[in-house]
Amino acid sequence: MNGMDRPGMDRPGKGRLLGLGVGPGDPELITLKALRLLKSAPVVGYFVAKAKANVGQGGNAFGIIEAHLEDSQQRLPLVYPVTTEKLEPPLTYEGVISDFYDTCAVQIAEHLDAGRDVAVICEGDPFFYGSYMYLHDRLAERYEAEVIPGVCSMLGSAAVLGVPLVYRNQSLSVLSGVLPEDELRERLRNAEAAVVMKLGRNFEKVRRVLQALGLHDRAHYVERATMANQRIVPLDEVEPMASPYFSMIVVPGEKWRG
Amino acid sequence: MNGMDRPGMDRPGKGRLLGLGVGPGDPELITLKALRLLKSAPVVGYFVAKAKANVGQGGNAFGIIEAHLEDSQQRLPLVYPVTTEKLEPPLTYEGVISDFYDTCAVQIAEHLDAGRDVAVICEGDPFFYGSYMYLHDRLAERYEAEVIPGVCSMLGSAAVLGVPLVYRNQSLSVLSGVLPEDELRERLRNAEAAVVMKLGRNFEKVRRVLQALGLHDRAHYVERATMANQRIVPLDEVEPMASPYFSMIVVPGEKWRG
Repeated sequence: MNGMDRPGMDRPGKGRLLGLGVGPGDPELITLKALRLLKSAPVVGYFVAKAKANVGQGGNAFGIIEAHLEDSQQRLPLVYPVTTEKLEPPLTYEGVISDFYDTCAVQIAEHLDAGRDVAVICEGDPFFYGSYMYLHDRLAERYEAEVIPGVCSMLGSAAVLGVPLVYRNQSLSVLSGVLPEDELRERLRNAEAAVVMKLGRNFEKVRRVLQALGLHDRAHYVERATMANQRIVPLDEVEPMASPYFSMIVVPGEKWRG
Repeated sequence: MNGMDRPGMDRPGKGRLLGLGVGPGDPELITLKALRLLKSAPVVGYFVAKAKANVGQGGNAFGIIEAHLEDSQQRLPLVYPVTTEKLEPPLTYEGVISDFYDTCAVQIAEHLDAGRDVAVICEGDPFFYGSYMYLHDRLAERYEAEVIPGVCSMLGSAAVLGVPLVYRNQSLSVLSGVLPEDELRERLRNAEAAVVMKLGRNFEKVRRVLQALGLHDRAHYVERATMANQRIVPLDEVEPMASPYFSMIVVPGEKWRG
């Protein structure tokens, strides 16, 4: 349960965990509420890849909000131990990342126990595929937690593409490009409107499925929607090996011409 | 295509159409960008039900942003001619509402032709089941149009319920309660995570399907998420006939315990 109805009341002396959606990339797409809570938080946590942290960078979400921070606010980088590299058995990606979230939760709990609010910033929305969720699941039963929803990348993409996503009573399927080809085909076959996220190295497979289903002509492709380096490319001109993680395919619902 | 890359450049003398997502209800959940564009627009359009317009009210989206408007900004109410009342043949809901959108587009085009920007405000996000879409489809080929994405009600609901919506590579199905019972059952059966919108008089049917599929215990119900009169009720305590249009059922994905 979140803290909207009972701010700061039920765990006296403890800090609050705040999951702040900061939007899809354009710094102006943060909400007034997320910005207010961000500015008031003594500790600001953010996930960042090791390669970026090593050169002093703060990751995508941090870049969105960096200009709003005061020197007095403590930065708490949460540095992913792995990205896509191969791990030696018995290590698994799931095991390493789970241990990592455990460690993050301990770090954050120390601040909360000391009475300091911790704002964890999340690109897009915290509960829509955001890493914040794994901290929330580890901490929200013991501490007061409030989540501020954000503009998700899916809607940022539809907006910059200029395509209405779902009309009237159409159903929308949000899918991951990681899905096996046959499952992707089944789910897209039954979709009235669809968004496929997490393309990257899955791009060619997704495009093949869209072509097989005849959805190719209705599909739109965008990279880094609303960010400064946003790029809109016709689907058949995308270089599969160059498709970044922050790319998306949008198959809008059929227009209601009523 | 939208105007983010080429503001005001390609239709000299004409106004811009702006579709502004103002978020799910809490006035603080508007973005900095939507607020900036709202304040700069000489004409502000908003959809409103006839019953509300007749007593001088402005509808939900208008209520969210009313405090930000200056007297000098022209209000352009777009008053729905019908809501749920029965129509005498040969009138159909689809026909009446389509004529209505045509009329709205003509009204807006007059302002755009006179060089005045028109901001149409949309609860949630403009391209996520928003009425703005029907104006966009009628005007965006002739006028410069820019859409500012907003926090959608689905993510506002997950946030206030405190439930992460989709983990890792889970698929999300966004469904309308208006769907026939058997289609709803099929789509929910295959969903890893789901949101059912447009409940209202469809509530009992949706609850029956969730029970039949054993999804009942995982489902959360909320009315008017993030609004001042928000209400969270256990699913089996909801009075079916009292469920408002702005209610939603969220079936979050299974937690990743990794």
